[in-house]
Amino acid sequence: MIAIDLNCDCGESYGAFQVGDDEGVLPFVSSANVACGGHAGDPLVMRRTVRRCRELGVAVGAHPSYPDLHGFGRRVLPLSPDEIEDWVLAQIGALAAIARAEQVELRHVKPHGALYNVAARDHAVAAAIARAVVAFSREVALVGLAGSALIAAGIEAGLPVLAEAFADRAYEADGRLRDRRHPDALIIDPAACVAQTISIARDGVVIAIDGTPLPLRADTICLHGDTPGAAARAAALRQGLTAAGISVRAPGQ
Amino acid sequence: MIAIDLNCDCGESYGAFQVGDDEGVLPFVSSANVACGGHAGDPLVMRRTVRRCRELGVAVGAHPSYPDLHGFGRRVLPLSPDEIEDWVLAQIGALAAIARAEQVELRHVKPHGALYNVAARDHAVAAAIARAVVAFSREVALVGLAGSALIAAGIEAGLPVLAEAFADRAYEADGRLRDRRHPDALIIDPAACVAQTISIARDGVVIAIDGTPLPLRADTICLHGDTPGAAARAAALRQGLTAAGISVRAPGQ
Amino acid sequence: MIAIDLNCDCGESYGAFQVGDDEGVLPFVSSANVACGGHAGDPLVMRRTVRRCRELGVAVGAHPSYPDLHGFGRRVLPLSPDEIEDWVLAQIGALAAIARAEQVELRHVKPHGALYNVAARDHAVAAAIARAVVAFSREVALVGLAGSALIAAGIEAGLPVLAEAFADRAYEADGRLRDRRHPDALIIDPAACVAQTISIARDGVVIAIDGTPLPLRADTICLHGDTPGAAARAAALRQGLTAAGISVRAPGQ
Amino acid sequence: MIAIDLNCDCGESYGAFQVGDDEGVLPFVSSANVACGGHAGDPLVMRRTVRRCRELGVAVGAHPSYPDLHGFGRRVLPLSPDEIEDWVLAQIGALAAIARAEQVELRHVKPHGALYNVAARDHAVAAAIARAVVAFSREVALVGLAGSALIAAGIEAGLPVLAEAFADRAYEADGRLRDRRHPDALIIDPAACVAQTISIARDGVVIAIDGTPLPLRADTICLHGDTPGAAARAAALRQGLTAAGISVRAPGQ
Repeated sequence: MIAIDLNCDCGESYGAFQVGDDEGVLPFVSSANVACGGHAGDPLVMRRTVRRCRELGVAVGAHPSYPDLHGFGRRVLPLSPDEIEDWVLAQIGALAAIARAEQVELRHVKPHGALYNVAARDHAVAAAIARAVVAFSREVALVGLAGSALIAAGIEAGLPVLAEAFADRAYEADGRLRDRRHPDALIIDPAACVAQTISIARDGVVIAIDGTPLPLRADTICLHGDTPGAAARAAALRQGLTAAGISVRAPGQ
Repeated sequence: MIAIDLNCDCGESYGAFQVGDDEGVLPFVSSANVACGGHAGDPLVMRRTVRRCRELGVAVGAHPSYPDLHGFGRRVLPLSPDEIEDWVLAQIGALAAIARAEQVELRHVKPHGALYNVAARDHAVAAAIARAVVAFSREVALVGLAGSALIAAGIEAGLPVLAEAFADRAYEADGRLRDRRHPDALIIDPAACVAQTISIARDGVVIAIDGTPLPLRADTICLHGDTPGAAARAAALRQGLTAAGISVRAPGQ
Repeated sequence: MIAIDLNCDCGESYGAFQVGDDEGVLPFVSSANVACGGHAGDPLVMRRTVRRCRELGVAVGAHPSYPDLHGFGRRVLPLSPDEIEDWVLAQIGALAAIARAEQVELRHVKPHGALYNVAARDHAVAAAIARAVVAFSREVALVGLAGSALIAAGIEAGLPVLAEAFADRAYEADGRLRDRRHPDALIIDPAACVAQTISIARDGVVIAIDGTPLPLRADTICLHGDTPGAAARAAALRQGLTAAGISVRAPGQ
Repeated sequence: MIAIDLNCDCGESYGAFQVGDDEGVLPFVSSANVACGGHAGDPLVMRRTVRRCRELGVAVGAHPSYPDLHGFGRRVLPLSPDEIEDWVLAQIGALAAIARAEQVELRHVKPHGALYNVAARDHAVAAAIARAVVAFSREVALVGLAGSALIAAGIEAGLPVLAEAFADRAYEADGRLRDRRHPDALIIDPAACVAQTISIARDGVVIAIDGTPLPLRADTICLHGDTPGAAARAAALRQGLTAAGISVRAPGQ
C-alpha cells in the first residue's frame, strides 16, 4: 500500500495573538511542524500544541525560523550561517525540552518561511541548519524542498531527509513553486489539492501550472493551515487519499 | 581533603549589550550558571560562553529566569506555576541544545534573580521548577538557597540538589541574606569573602552581620561576577581556598 | 438632541498577527482607541489604523498599556508610578507622531487592559497617567471608568475627562463591572446592548444584573471589537441609537 | 568667533544593560543624539538622559534606528522606505513626548548605525527619513553625513540640515570614512582628534589617512561616546577647541 506523510505548520500563536486553525487541521495530518519561538510560538503555546499532537498521534517536529517575531519569519535577516546555526539550535532545544515533558520526542526539523527559502538555494545556510540538527540528534529528519540545497546538505551530513512537496501550491514548469504574489499560487479547491497530492504520492509527478507534467519525488506533503478553508481542505485531502488507497502516516510509523 | 564548588552567573550579555566580566571570573570557578534567554543571553552568547567553560573545564548549568529581558529577571512577573514550568523548560532546552553542539552536557539548573527568590519561599513555584528539571533530566542537579523551598522541592522530586551559600553576601542573624538595599549587603573585601567561604566550607558555619555564628551547610558557593572587582575577588577566593587546603571542584568531578 | 460618544479599541494587530475586526466595527463608532506598541500595535499598524479613522471621520485616541506584548497588556506588571508615566508618555508620543503624519491630532487617551483596571482604583497610578497626559497636552481628554480614581486624577490635573460606561458588559448591583469569568459578563445580544446604551445615554441609568437600576453618568460608551459578532453588534448599536434619536459623535465634534 | 556643534550618541542603555559613559562625555558636547527605543533606549533611560541634557544645557535630538535591539541597529533590516518612515516617526514621537515632560523640545534627528549609512547613499531611504522629520516638525534639523544623500533629501524637503563630520574617525582619500574593520579607522589619540576637529571647523579641511587634504564643510562634529577613553577624549576636544578660539555650541544657540 502506498503511504505518504502529510505535514502542516502549527503552534504559530503567540501569547494572546491567535494564528491558524490547529484544531481544525491537526486531526487530518500525520506530522506537525511546531513553531518554537523564532517567528511565533511561546513555551505555553508549544506545550499546548505538543500535547494536542500527542493526543492525536501526530508526529512532532521543530519549525525554527529567523528570530523575527514582528516579521513572522518571512523576511531574510542578515545573519551569518554560524549565527543561524545557533538560533536554530536554541529553537529546536526549547521545543524538545517541552516535548519531552509531554513524553514526545522530536521526529523532524523543517525551517520556516524565509529560512526555508534561503536554505533551499544557499548551500552555506543549508549546511548550517544541517549542522544544528546533527548536533541535536542524528535520528531527527531534516525536511526541505524536494531537490533543494537543504536536502543535499542533510544527505551530506548523514541525516535522514524528507523531500517536501505541496498539496496546495502551484508549480511552475521549471519545478519551482509559483510565487505567492500570483493569485493562482495557492490551490484553494480541495479536489485540486487531492488530485495534486495523489499524483505526487502515487505517480511521482506534479502537473505544472502550464500543464507540463514534472517528475517530483516527495516523502512528505505540506498542507497550509493558515489559509481560509484550511480545515475543510485538510479533511478532503485525508479522505481523498484514503479513497485512493493511499495511507497517511509519518515516516517510520 | 575538603572540597567545595564555586559557582558564578555568566553569559549575561545580549547582542551588543555587554554584561559582567566572564573572562575575568570564569577561570577561578568550578561551575557556571549560563543565562539562557530569559533575563539575558542569546544563542550566540550562549554558544560562546559554553565553549569558554569547556576550555576552562568549568561545569555548565542553566540559569533560567522569568522571561523579562528589560527587567533583567529581577522583577516578579505574574505567571502561574505551570507557566513558569514551561518558560523554564524552554530555557533549559535552548541552552542544552547549544551546549550539546559543544559536546557539553548540562550539570545543574539554578533559577535567576526574582525567580530564585520566589522559589526559595513559594512551594508551588519551587515544585514547578523541579518538575521542569525532572522532565529534562533526572541527572541534573537543582541549585537553590540552602534551606529553601526549592531545595525541598528538588529532594521531593528525586533530583540531586545543591544547597547554595554566598561568598560575597552578608547574612542576617536569622539566616536570611541581608537585603541588597543595605550598603553592607555585599561583601567587597576579598579577604572577608575568603574567610566567609572557608568558614562555610570547612566548619559549616557563617558569621551573621551581628556576629552570631549560624550553622550553614552548603554544597556550592556563589560568587557574583557583575560587581566591581569581581575578577580580583574570584582570584583571591580561589587562592585563599587552596591555601586553606580546600579543593575547588564541581560536584561529581 | 441627546448625543453620546461610542468608542472601540482598535489597531491591536502586530506584524503578521491579526487581531480584531477593525474594518467591521470602526464605521459605527465615533472614537477609536488605537494601540500604540505597549500591548499590541506597531508603527505600520498604527499608521494604517489612523488613516482608516481619518477616512471614516472617527476621532483618534491613544490606548497605552503596560509594556507587555506577550501578555497583551492584561497582566499587572511590577512598575512604579514613575515608570508607568514614562511608558505611557512614550506610547502616546509614538502614536501622536504617526497620527500627525496623517494630519490627525490625538483627542483622548484611554489606558488599556490591566492598566485601565489598576488606574481605576490606584490613585498613584491614576495620577501618573494623568501626569503623562498633561505633559503631552492639556487639550487631550483622559478616558476612564465612570466614577474611578482615573477620572478623579484627570479632574485634579485639570484635564478634560470622559467617564466611560460599557454597552456590552454587565454591571453588578454595586456598580462594578461583572467579572469576565462569569459567562454572562459580556452582553452578546445586540438588542440588549442597544437597550443598555440608550438607558445610560438618555436616562443616566444602567440596570444591574440583578435588576437594580443604578445611576450612571457617562460621556462615552465602549463597545468591544474583539468579541465574536462585534461588527453586527456595532451596526445594531449605531442604528438603535439613531432610531432612538440619540446622536453618535465624538466630544467636541 | 568660529563656532562648531559637538554631538555624541547617548542614552543607549536598555533596562539593566548599561552602555556608554554618558556622564563622562555629555558635559563636553553641545548636542546629544538620544536613542529612542529602536536599537537601544527605553522610556526610563530616555527620561533620565533628557533630564541630564537639560541640566547640562545640551541640545537634545532623536537618534532613531532600524527596530533591532539585538543587533543594536548595526544591521540593515529588509524594510521598505515607507516602513522606515513609520518606525522613525514612532521613535521620534516617543522621545519627543518624554522630552516635553522635561520641558525640552527636540532640536534635531540623526539616524543611527546602519540606518545612517544606508540613508547616506540610498535616496529612497533618505527621503523616507526626511518625510518623517517633516511630518514631525519643520523646525527640527536633519543630521547626516556631509555630502550624503540624507543631507540632499533634507534640503529637498525644506528642512534645516546639519552636515556631520567626525572627530575620531579617519577619512579615506576619496572622502569616505575609513572602514571600521581597519585598526586605524578610529582615532584614539585625543590630540589627533583635536587637530582634526580644528582643521574641519576652522579651515573646512580634513587630512585623509594618506595625507591628502580634503575640503569638508561640516555643521556638527560627532564624537563617539562608547569607545574606551571617550570621556578623556571629549574633555581634551572641548579644551582644545576653546584654546583654539573655537566656540562649542548647538546650532541656533
